Amino acid sequence: MTDSSKQTATLLITAPDRKGLVHAISLFLLEHNGNIIHADQHEDAIEKLFLMRVEWDMQGFTLQTREAIARAFAPVADAFGMSWQLHFSHTRRRIALFTSQYEHCLSDLLHRHRIGELNCDIPLVIGNHDSVRDLVERHGIPFYHIVTTRENKAEAEACQLALLEKANIDTIVLARYMQILSPVFVQKYPNQVINIHHSFLPAFDGAKPYHRAHARGVKLIGATSHYVTDELDEGPIIEQEVTRVSHRDDIPDLIEKGRDLEKIVLARAVKWHLQSRVLSYNNKTVVFD
Amino acid sequence: MTDSSKQTATLLITAPDRKGLVHAISLFLLEHNGNIIHADQHEDAIEKLFLMRVEWDMQGFTLQTREAIARAFAPVADAFGMSWQLHFSHTRRRIALFTSQYEHCLSDLLHRHRIGELNCDIPLVIGNHDSVRDLVERHGIPFYHIVTTRENKAEAEACQLALLEKANIDTIVLARYMQILSPVFVQKYPNQVINIHHSFLPAFDGAKPYHRAHARGVKLIGATSHYVTDELDEGPIIEQEVTRVSHRDDIPDLIEKGRDLEKIVLARAVKWHLQSRVLSYNNKTVVFD
Amino acid sequence: MTDSSKQTATLLITAPDRKGLVHAISLFLLEHNGNIIHADQHEDAIEKLFLMRVEWDMQGFTLQTREAIARAFAPVADAFGMSWQLHFSHTRRRIALFTSQYEHCLSDLLHRHRIGELNCDIPLVIGNHDSVRDLVERHGIPFYHIVTTRENKAEAEACQLALLEKANIDTIVLARYMQILSPVFVQKYPNQVINIHHSFLPAFDGAKPYHRAHARGVKLIGATSHYVTDELDEGPIIEQEVTRVSHRDDIPDLIEKGRDLEKIVLARAVKWHLQSRVLSYNNKTVVFD
Amino acid sequence: MTDSSKQTATLLITAPDRKGLVHAISLFLLEHNGNIIHADQHEDAIEKLFLMRVEWDMQGFTLQTREAIARAFAPVADAFGMSWQLHFSHTRRRIALFTSQYEHCLSDLLHRHRIGELNCDIPLVIGNHDSVRDLVERHGIPFYHIVTTRENKAEAEACQLALLEKANIDTIVLARYMQILSPVFVQKYPNQVINIHHSFLPAFDGAKPYHRAHARGVKLIGATSHYVTDELDEGPIIEQEVTRVSHRDDIPDLIEKGRDLEKIVLARAVKWHLQSRVLSYNNKTVVFD
Repeated sequence: MTDSSKQTATLLITAPDRKGLVHAISLFLLEHNGNIIHADQHEDAIEKLFLMRVEWDMQGFTLQTREAIARAFAPVADAFGMSWQLHFSHTRRRIALFTSQYEHCLSDLLHRHRIGELNCDIPLVIGNHDSVRDLVERHGIPFYHIVTTRENKAEAEACQLALLEKANIDTIVLARYMQILSPVFVQKYPNQVINIHHSFLPAFDGAKPYHRAHARGVKLIGATSHYVTDELDEGPIIEQEVTRVSHRDDIPDLIEKGRDLEKIVLARAVKWHLQSRVLSYNNKTVVFD
Repeated sequence: MTDSSKQTATLLITAPDRKGLVHAISLFLLEHNGNIIHADQHEDAIEKLFLMRVEWDMQGFTLQTREAIARAFAPVADAFGMSWQLHFSHTRRRIALFTSQYEHCLSDLLHRHRIGELNCDIPLVIGNHDSVRDLVERHGIPFYHIVTTRENKAEAEACQLALLEKANIDTIVLARYMQILSPVFVQKYPNQVINIHHSFLPAFDGAKPYHRAHARGVKLIGATSHYVTDELDEGPIIEQEVTRVSHRDDIPDLIEKGRDLEKIVLARAVKWHLQSRVLSYNNKTVVFD
Repeated sequence: MTDSSKQTATLLITAPDRKGLVHAISLFLLEHNGNIIHADQHEDAIEKLFLMRVEWDMQGFTLQTREAIARAFAPVADAFGMSWQLHFSHTRRRIALFTSQYEHCLSDLLHRHRIGELNCDIPLVIGNHDSVRDLVERHGIPFYHIVTTRENKAEAEACQLALLEKANIDTIVLARYMQILSPVFVQKYPNQVINIHHSFLPAFDGAKPYHRAHARGVKLIGATSHYVTDELDEGPIIEQEVTRVSHRDDIPDLIEKGRDLEKIVLARAVKWHLQSRVLSYNNKTVVFD
Repeated sequence: MTDSSKQTATLLITAPDRKGLVHAISLFLLEHNGNIIHADQHEDAIEKLFLMRVEWDMQGFTLQTREAIARAFAPVADAFGMSWQLHFSHTRRRIALFTSQYEHCLSDLLHRHRIGELNCDIPLVIGNHDSVRDLVERHGIPFYHIVTTRENKAEAEACQLALLEKANIDTIVLARYMQILSPVFVQKYPNQVINIHHSFLPAFDGAKPYHRAHARGVKLIGATSHYVTDELDEGPIIEQEVTRVSHRDDIPDLIEKGRDLEKIVLARAVKWHLQSRVLSYNNKTVVFD
């Protein structure tokens, strides 16, 4: 893990696999006096794809702005057909939390944020139940109660999008939001909307997964965090976890045990996303170490 | 766990839930000088069903035969509408293993049997590939090579069933058999055919689960042991386990990691079945402690 | 799990193992029209000990008070040399939380209490750092800041004990309290003080377990909840859990990953304790299903 | 995972951390037409140490022998103070298994070798009980029965060492060998003797770990694979795993559950060692992805 007091930059790179890629990237960093703190790469032999995450110390690096780095890196990127993202550790991302009346993930994320586990700002929380207002406002965060129904969905989303744009939001975390976002909404935030589904996907996608898990008599239940795409519960999986259940566990027990899974699996996804450790391709993710 | 040198009897009981059930069973045992070694029960509040496993020491018990116990227990069972099974620890069940060329589960079960982990006899192994013959025969067990194709299925099963009947087989373990048994076959051995499926059911039922898990980008893979019913991969689940995978794991890695899951999950199911710890109802299982 | 709207009584029983115990207990319940909801028992064959938890519906039970049950059960208990405890689901236990500045377990327990996961009252929180006051008071619970040092320990504990007695506290939960209670204190609450230790005991007992885990290069870290006894970190273990770490995890990573373990392992112990599912003997616990 | 039909070379590198390391290594490979298949690196910020594993395709690489690579890489290594090891995928390592009468790990490793999971030769097995001879010889591997007692230890080890040298053994796997090797022996094979200890180290090091785990009442038991050093059970840990136990598990249950852990934890360590994925430093290991 990186010393959080250190200012670092991270490049996430995707390119067709080719000889010389690592050399080109490491030469670029060396030429500008970059000290690599972490590097992790992945070669997908089937897709012939190269994916890399490289993080270096900004202290002493001769390029100090996004623009300067972009300008200097462009020839390298072009030569190898790379697509890339650049993140600075000291530019905190701006996260909006969406929630329903099920507040356990919300409460968990707010507490993690409070004790410094999440390197981000949370300028606002949007919920379709006012019951969580108190919890949110106690953390000094504005809460917007936007009731969403089948009928008013377009308006509700317009209202949400306006708030997000105004607050300059980068990433939206659906903390048990229990509503389906429209394709229009999702396409505005590609790979930037993180959902938690309360099953071990692809098992029990859709509604009432704990009820169906109970009916099927499974011996483990799970939770899955994923980026939201147009296909419900079909986006790239970021993290999954399971816990053991038995014949003694009724549906309320599954729901209770599941809450602990949901909290942890969503928190990990958010944390890794904020650390620029997740790269999507082919509807899958690479989670760099 | 029971001292294996001790001779014990086990009753598995299912009954409509009613006051006085535990008392009636414990009185029956007390009246015949039975010392309870283990008892575990489950009340399904939704189905209003009572399920119990009770194991007692046969030493000093005044009823020493299956017939004597059955006769004495009948009035109790009738009064409460119980269905019940009786097993003696010293009556070893007779197990047939069915296998394909994938021999890891077969090898694992044979080794567990050799070192005394499985309280059963294995009078025969049936396989549709002759390549495992050597492995089986080295353990002193007859191997029958029966090639099964779509065309000869009826004959092949008839041949298998004849072998099973002649060998007085109680339970059939499909150790990665990779063939679907006909309903006729399955109905001859209700809750007595144990299969291992190489996925976390209900995810990836059917063919090529590791390939599909890889394509979906899951972060955990699993294995499931279950009793075989007429519906493919839909029978009562006995045990499940998962292991972590990452973007670095290609399909051969999933297959290799999965082998360890399959071995353990199948072995647990077989062991619990042999210990008379599994009761099925409503297409689920109770696995008693 | 029991329907929480149902009023139930639970007996926890320990006795020398003997024929007729289950019969005697079930007869007692039957005679007073008790409908068993759950029963779980354990026979320790080495110690020749019988331990049981039985929970029944109070509706229709002919004995409605603690005194009436005690009086009627006494002859049974005496005949078999039982020691026993009786708990009513509708008599909420009274829990005090002790905390340091490390607030994650505190926050977690308060949230679980808020959403109804913990069947108890929390009349007070005692802390040796005032920084958590806000968090506690927002939940409407009085917070007492009692600074404890080596020098003032006796006075501080006297002050704590006075608060506990006045508030009629049953159980004390050390939510990362980071102080050692004196034997005098501990002996006032036998098997009623629950601690969370941030290692997989008996590994890394005592101070700085994450630092020592890092130095040793372990591949898993753990947390342990246990009842507090006079021997530091040596009391009966209620629950343990581990999570995977690697060479990439520095001490701050271990601490962060460990927090999630600590929260879950402590919450499970508190929940099981409140459900009267934990019985201690021989410095171990039985956790009934 | 690497396609096993492909011939690859792997460098394991340790060096004081310094700018330019990755560039120098990637330049070396590029200059000789090396196509990187996997690279993983670790920077220990505390120790200021850089550790890397890089694997490349030998097809088309302009240096085809160990000597040629060593000669060409020497200036790079010298410039950065690297220590390094070079392994070819097509040079199978030679492994000796040491065993006692507890044959489960032995049987497991032999089966994994048989089905191609372990990329190595096993020229011999040495055991202090003749009971496993049959199992070994059935796999076509010579078995040497060398009885080791406190009295004859020096002679027995001399005999073992002679066999190892003659068979050109690289790595020794103690598959539940249950004997302590002398420092003289261990020093001949630094980081080349892999042991399995049947506990979650550092808990329960030394003798009878399952008995002590049972006495302590732990809720999880574990197994640990590690390189052997002069300090008993204190060598660098390669892998650990745990499984859940309860009050119902007696010592024989712990031993039985533990066997499954031991098999898996030892097999992983051997596999990773054979894949040149393990680097030791500071009595810890880095296990590269």
